[in-house]
Amino acid sequence: MNDCTVIFQPSGRRGKVASGLTIVEASRRLGVDIETICGEQRVCGKCKVRVLEGFVENRGIRSDMSHLSPWTSEEGAFISPEERAQGYRLGCAARILGDVLIYVPEESRGSVQVVRKEARPIEVTLNPAVKSYAVSVPQPTLQDPTADFERLGQALTAEHGIGRLRIDSRLLSMLPRIIRDCRWKVQVLVWQDQEIIDIRAADAFKPLGLAVDIGTTTLAGYLCDLTTGSLLATVSMMNPQVKYGEDVMSRITYAMMHPGEGLEKMNTEIVDAINALASRAASSCGSTPADICDMTVVGNTLMHHVFLGIDPGALGLSPFPPAIHGPVDVKARDMGVRIHHGAYVYVLPIEAGFVGADNVGVLISQEPYRKEDMALIIDIGTNGELVLGNRTRLISASCATGPALEGAQITFGMRAAPGAIERVRVDPSTLEVDYRVIGREQWKSESNPGDMLARGICGSGILDALAELFGAGVIGKSGAFAPALDSRRFRKGKDGQPCFGIAREEETSIGRDIVITQKDVRQIQLAKGALYTGAKLLMRRMGVTTLDRVLLAGAFGNYVDPERALMVGLFPPCPLDRVQSVGNAAGDGARLALLDRAKRVEAEQIAKQVEYMELTTEPDFQERFIESLHLPHMKDPFPDL
Amino acid sequence: MNDCTVIFQPSGRRGKVASGLTIVEASRRLGVDIETICGEQRVCGKCKVRVLEGFVENRGIRSDMSHLSPWTSEEGAFISPEERAQGYRLGCAARILGDVLIYVPEESRGSVQVVRKEARPIEVTLNPAVKSYAVSVPQPTLQDPTADFERLGQALTAEHGIGRLRIDSRLLSMLPRIIRDCRWKVQVLVWQDQEIIDIRAADAFKPLGLAVDIGTTTLAGYLCDLTTGSLLATVSMMNPQVKYGEDVMSRITYAMMHPGEGLEKMNTEIVDAINALASRAASSCGSTPADICDMTVVGNTLMHHVFLGIDPGALGLSPFPPAIHGPVDVKARDMGVRIHHGAYVYVLPIEAGFVGADNVGVLISQEPYRKEDMALIIDIGTNGELVLGNRTRLISASCATGPALEGAQITFGMRAAPGAIERVRVDPSTLEVDYRVIGREQWKSESNPGDMLARGICGSGILDALAELFGAGVIGKSGAFAPALDSRRFRKGKDGQPCFGIAREEETSIGRDIVITQKDVRQIQLAKGALYTGAKLLMRRMGVTTLDRVLLAGAFGNYVDPERALMVGLFPPCPLDRVQSVGNAAGDGARLALLDRAKRVEAEQIAKQVEYMELTTEPDFQERFIESLHLPHMKDPFPDL
Repeated sequence: MNDCTVIFQPSGRRGKVASGLTIVEASRRLGVDIETICGEQRVCGKCKVRVLEGFVENRGIRSDMSHLSPWTSEEGAFISPEERAQGYRLGCAARILGDVLIYVPEESRGSVQVVRKEARPIEVTLNPAVKSYAVSVPQPTLQDPTADFERLGQALTAEHGIGRLRIDSRLLSMLPRIIRDCRWKVQVLVWQDQEIIDIRAADAFKPLGLAVDIGTTTLAGYLCDLTTGSLLATVSMMNPQVKYGEDVMSRITYAMMHPGEGLEKMNTEIVDAINALASRAASSCGSTPADICDMTVVGNTLMHHVFLGIDPGALGLSPFPPAIHGPVDVKARDMGVRIHHGAYVYVLPIEAGFVGADNVGVLISQEPYRKEDMALIIDIGTNGELVLGNRTRLISASCATGPALEGAQITFGMRAAPGAIERVRVDPSTLEVDYRVIGREQWKSESNPGDMLARGICGSGILDALAELFGAGVIGKSGAFAPALDSRRFRKGKDGQPCFGIAREEETSIGRDIVITQKDVRQIQLAKGALYTGAKLLMRRMGVTTLDRVLLAGAFGNYVDPERALMVGLFPPCPLDRVQSVGNAAGDGARLALLDRAKRVEAEQIAKQVEYMELTTEPDFQERFIESLHLPHMKDPFPDL
Repeated sequence: MNDCTVIFQPSGRRGKVASGLTIVEASRRLGVDIETICGEQRVCGKCKVRVLEGFVENRGIRSDMSHLSPWTSEEGAFISPEERAQGYRLGCAARILGDVLIYVPEESRGSVQVVRKEARPIEVTLNPAVKSYAVSVPQPTLQDPTADFERLGQALTAEHGIGRLRIDSRLLSMLPRIIRDCRWKVQVLVWQDQEIIDIRAADAFKPLGLAVDIGTTTLAGYLCDLTTGSLLATVSMMNPQVKYGEDVMSRITYAMMHPGEGLEKMNTEIVDAINALASRAASSCGSTPADICDMTVVGNTLMHHVFLGIDPGALGLSPFPPAIHGPVDVKARDMGVRIHHGAYVYVLPIEAGFVGADNVGVLISQEPYRKEDMALIIDIGTNGELVLGNRTRLISASCATGPALEGAQITFGMRAAPGAIERVRVDPSTLEVDYRVIGREQWKSESNPGDMLARGICGSGILDALAELFGAGVIGKSGAFAPALDSRRFRKGKDGQPCFGIAREEETSIGRDIVITQKDVRQIQLAKGALYTGAKLLMRRMGVTTLDRVLLAGAFGNYVDPERALMVGLFPPCPLDRVQSVGNAAGDGARLALLDRAKRVEAEQIAKQVEYMELTTEPDFQERFIESLHLPHMKDPFPDL
């Protein structure tokens, strides 16, 4: 039996499997989870995947060649001729006979990624941009034949004290009919006390709002009741842009290499994804997307541009200027966003090229500008953004951390999903390893090895491992593995690189040892060096030598162990009890902007106020960066601070 | 040979013709002009008409039955199968064999109606809503990587002192590309000092504007250069709504009888017509519709509603409230209006249900609110609107004049078009008649009878005739023909009604005497009675007994003979030298609003300020109206004023 190379998208997991395995069997070996409700009996159709390579075109209908087993009639029950022509197969039916690239659609992914974007309780003054007013409009008479719109406006002024409203142009065309059908007693939805966006029968309708966080990797949506402020649903899905690359720059490159249609495709995908998110959020609480009357959006600058359909080319070239800093209010329907027909989408402002609307969301949720103490806010998603400051001054910077802290570009790295090793402890004397995986409470030491079913290591696990290996002397100050280490966990890989075993083959679901390699250590060093250098340069610009607080935001920041982060020097020293995880603060910011208009004003002001610091133009940046790679900072790489 | 009843639309001309005539031959008999460039040789295809009745459906393709001669292969060269299925025929090929209703499309109409909507010179302070600014934008650097939009805004503030602009959402998406392609030297089009609607290479572009007057019968467009204010072209066409009826109420009825699709169809037609007008105007001066960066629209309340896609149902029921009084700014592209992609359409405000945006146009062009003297403004289009007042107070009213003053519902009435009798003189001693037709300088007394080619009588001709016949004693005070008149011009018609000949058969192009009947006189009496009563009731409300000025606006008002209008009592007495024709003042108002933003503010203020008076609810309206029918007002029907 020959080995076949299999690549799964969008996870990017790849490996060789024996010829003859089904796609689902192969996915299990490579740590990719495909939904199989029926236990691979070919009766649920949930494991539908799309095979992107390994077959050829044949008279319009793609017929699989030797890379996959022939089409079976059972698949026809779940896959339409159109889908078949696009390469869809059932994962439990099609067997791998050659090299294949397999795309696992969102709906076929078994255990959806653990969304580390749960909503935290937030304190908010309920003052949404979209408000509902009940009003009773006096009917026209021959003595007072004032027009419907002005009549409605007069009633709103008299009953609610709001005036000088305009009306959505499409709604205007229906106004005479609606107001008469409702017998002049109506509920009026008003956006920003400026525009009437809907008129309905009194009390017929509770307006909802959706706060959207377009993460580089994950889209999250928070559905809120605009009349009570309560959170009704949290939904998330993979960002479809992942297929253009894990990082921002490769997506900009994709758009630049495919002028016109590249951006259009990316824009359509992100809008479609938001529509899917809105639909799922609404149906989860018995509503429809048309009930969503307001939407706020945060995202990094690229996602901001792609969502707004703005050519992102300039973001790929120094000095990386965005197209617009200020907030954008745009009719959802003009964007193709299918929510309420009159709704606006509010996109939060941008600070600088690589400090985007997501960071503004972090700021308005953490409000460092209201406090005296000097705070460093670290938002590590697929990129790293830093903000340092207090009520007097705020400086932001962007760090090229790379995606290592999210588990990418690490040999057994994976995103935070069930089976990912998220915590690691190494006994300094025995070098024995204990660990915990996502989705399982018990540590390995408390479990049967076969129950662990580890699939890989996620960002917080990698940082844990690095800190522990350093603490145990397995790794030296420079990040190199100790030369002659006596442990059965220590070995040389095929490429001659040393590596250290974390989970044994029998503890995994992928049938192989999960190890940390020298190269993996280097990736983490580069990421932590970038963050550390950035923070130190910000402190120098600010003229401070100590931090009062460190706030860790974002998917990684939320789960990292602060003590181990300090051990490896992820950020400058700070009392451990002053290091705090603040969750998906960007998403919280989007929610705050949804529920409180004053937060939008605040966002616009703060985005203007934050100074942006370009780190790479600091004359000593390279030097400081290289010094910051060391583990830990026994010698402070910034002695002058 | 049997006689066939033929009705031509949209002119409404009808009559009986001998069976076997071609449609073009019949049109000539009935005074309808169909284009025939090739002299009816069936080779130019210009005489294409649509036969609306007189045939039946047959297996999807309409096959003409006995009412028209069979389809000929020559027609197939000009008429597509689709058009054939809709009933199109060549007017020179199809022969009439039975009763038919024929619609003559705009393009097949021989002599287009004389557009009495020529633009007059207007005095205006050039201050258009759309202005062009040349600006040189500093390029971003690493030291100042400010976003493109804010960078552009800063440059506009520095060079031109305008700030706080927003940008068209579609333009924003192209901003980074445009500004770099133009090497940071650009020309920026700004709407209302609020929104950037276009960015182009410096000096590449001269913005144009189109003022549109949606008349009940005629659409007129005035194309202006927004940088100089000069008038570049005047274009006009029939309002396609004419097919739903000559008057406003029958069009409202059409919309109400066909809920949903009726309005949609009417809206599409009017938008298509405006697009055609814009296209024709632009091409007449070597431009394209995309060069038209601003548009203003006036029209009566129904046309306003139909253009904006607003359900006009409420306009058909007492108390006739419109949907909105205030001005409407709406993106042209959202209306389907194909001009510049970022342009807005400004629709002037409405005073009251039947005193529409057209009347506001009249007001801002005549500015009675700036003067001390008490002016009566009479705008007679297909409806009659009156405004009385001065700088202290303005009162408006709407009069149900009916369309008689436009030549409709008059036996030989026609619109102002070549061949229409527009001036009439009757010698009191001989009762001989002299007259002049549109398109010919010489009076009949100076011409060969066969050269007159009269086709009918238009509004001003009818009023002239009435005044002259009254002055000559042919018609008495009550409007009745004198009982035993000794003139060969006086006779009884087939229906026993007396009538008076104006043009003899040999002087016409229709092969019949053109006469004024007793019924025609009654129609004019009703119209003038309505206007007179309305004006008097306004004067009573205002508390004045005399008028300082009378302004005659609109198609009819522009051509009426003031002396004869006073003779028949079209309006209350006023010194003849104080009666003035002011042309298409509504269209002038649209042009003023296009060229001077201050006029838009003025329009909004004045529309709110004018008091609307509902005439029909005055307790003595009926009584006064009946008294006002008399010729002339020897006894003032308002002795109490």
